[in-house]
Amino acid sequence: MKLYYATGTCALASHIALEEAGAEYSTVRLNFATHEQRSAEYLAINPKGRVPALVTDRGILTETPAMLVFIAQSFPKAKLAPLDDPFRFAEVQAFNSYLCSTVHVAHAHRMRGTRWADDPAAIEAMKRKVPESVGACFELIEQKMLQGPWVIGESYTICDPYLFTLAQWLEGDSVDPARFPKVRDHRNRMSERAAVRKALAEELG
Amino acid sequence: MKLYYATGTCALASHIALEEAGAEYSTVRLNFATHEQRSAEYLAINPKGRVPALVTDRGILTETPAMLVFIAQSFPKAKLAPLDDPFRFAEVQAFNSYLCSTVHVAHAHRMRGTRWADDPAAIEAMKRKVPESVGACFELIEQKMLQGPWVIGESYTICDPYLFTLAQWLEGDSVDPARFPKVRDHRNRMSERAAVRKALAEELG
Repeated sequence: MKLYYATGTCALASHIALEEAGAEYSTVRLNFATHEQRSAEYLAINPKGRVPALVTDRGILTETPAMLVFIAQSFPKAKLAPLDDPFRFAEVQAFNSYLCSTVHVAHAHRMRGTRWADDPAAIEAMKRKVPESVGACFELIEQKMLQGPWVIGESYTICDPYLFTLAQWLEGDSVDPARFPKVRDHRNRMSERAAVRKALAEELG
Repeated sequence: MKLYYATGTCALASHIALEEAGAEYSTVRLNFATHEQRSAEYLAINPKGRVPALVTDRGILTETPAMLVFIAQSFPKAKLAPLDDPFRFAEVQAFNSYLCSTVHVAHAHRMRGTRWADDPAAIEAMKRKVPESVGACFELIEQKMLQGPWVIGESYTICDPYLFTLAQWLEGDSVDPARFPKVRDHRNRMSERAAVRKALAEELG
């Protein structure tokens, strides 16, 4: 498998999951500064012009929640999701769906406002709201969702690398992680895992 | 099972899926005009203050992509997803993830701009961009995603009620469905299904 990623993006979640799964894979880093994600070559791989994308022997997959489940199902011995329990599996999926459709979207209004407005003053207004909207998301995660030590409790799952990835962005979004002790502890716990260290070392190297 | 919904929301996708699955279920309609989704009673069910929510005998589920898979897995005889093929399943999930994190989000900037900015002029600027951003999403669906006659080809899946639900919003978003013949045909094909008629009749009744 081949993972297309860019540094500092949500592709880190799939990168960590591939490591946790013990998968054989290679990576390709795209440079967003030079808009490589908009090149004809990459648009042939992912017409959305975004990362991540995962090339498999069956075809190309996109969208983090879908890729994370695919990795978990392809490497069942790694036990990265409760694959035999539809309700527990749905809880995992609901958490990851919240991350992609609400938390990531709130964050994206800091750097990607041009997706949703053209007026420069409106784009600035979006940026100003990010600490509040992202903060509210993490408040809900802290109070209602994160069970500890891992997201769904005692079992490490595909929720954990995804939460870790989005929690990396807190300081950049001017949200103080000290407000969220459980999220901060989770981030520290994740940072000590070999898979996380390896993925981060490669992405930042 | 009990489905909490509001008229004109993405909860319709799960409502249709429950019908297609032959599930025994009841529904509770929330009135967004009186902010019932923000009542203490409902926040105890879904702390996010949004629909849909699905009460099951194991607990409460939220987030459309997670609920749709849960319905498909709970009623396997209805064959609403390729449950035995991780790659095909990931394609289904990727489509639904795109709907929730990109298409629904683009649409939400017309009515829910206060989530992402406080300035009234910014909220107006967001509204102005919706025809373009939603139109671009459906252009990608039309050109690259919707295989026909159903989203992933010959098999009807949980992608279909979800696409149908979001395609209901095109006119309200000032996007002309005539630009997207495959999406329009899909919408017409969906409208003829008994499950869709029943769910719509109840929600609009």
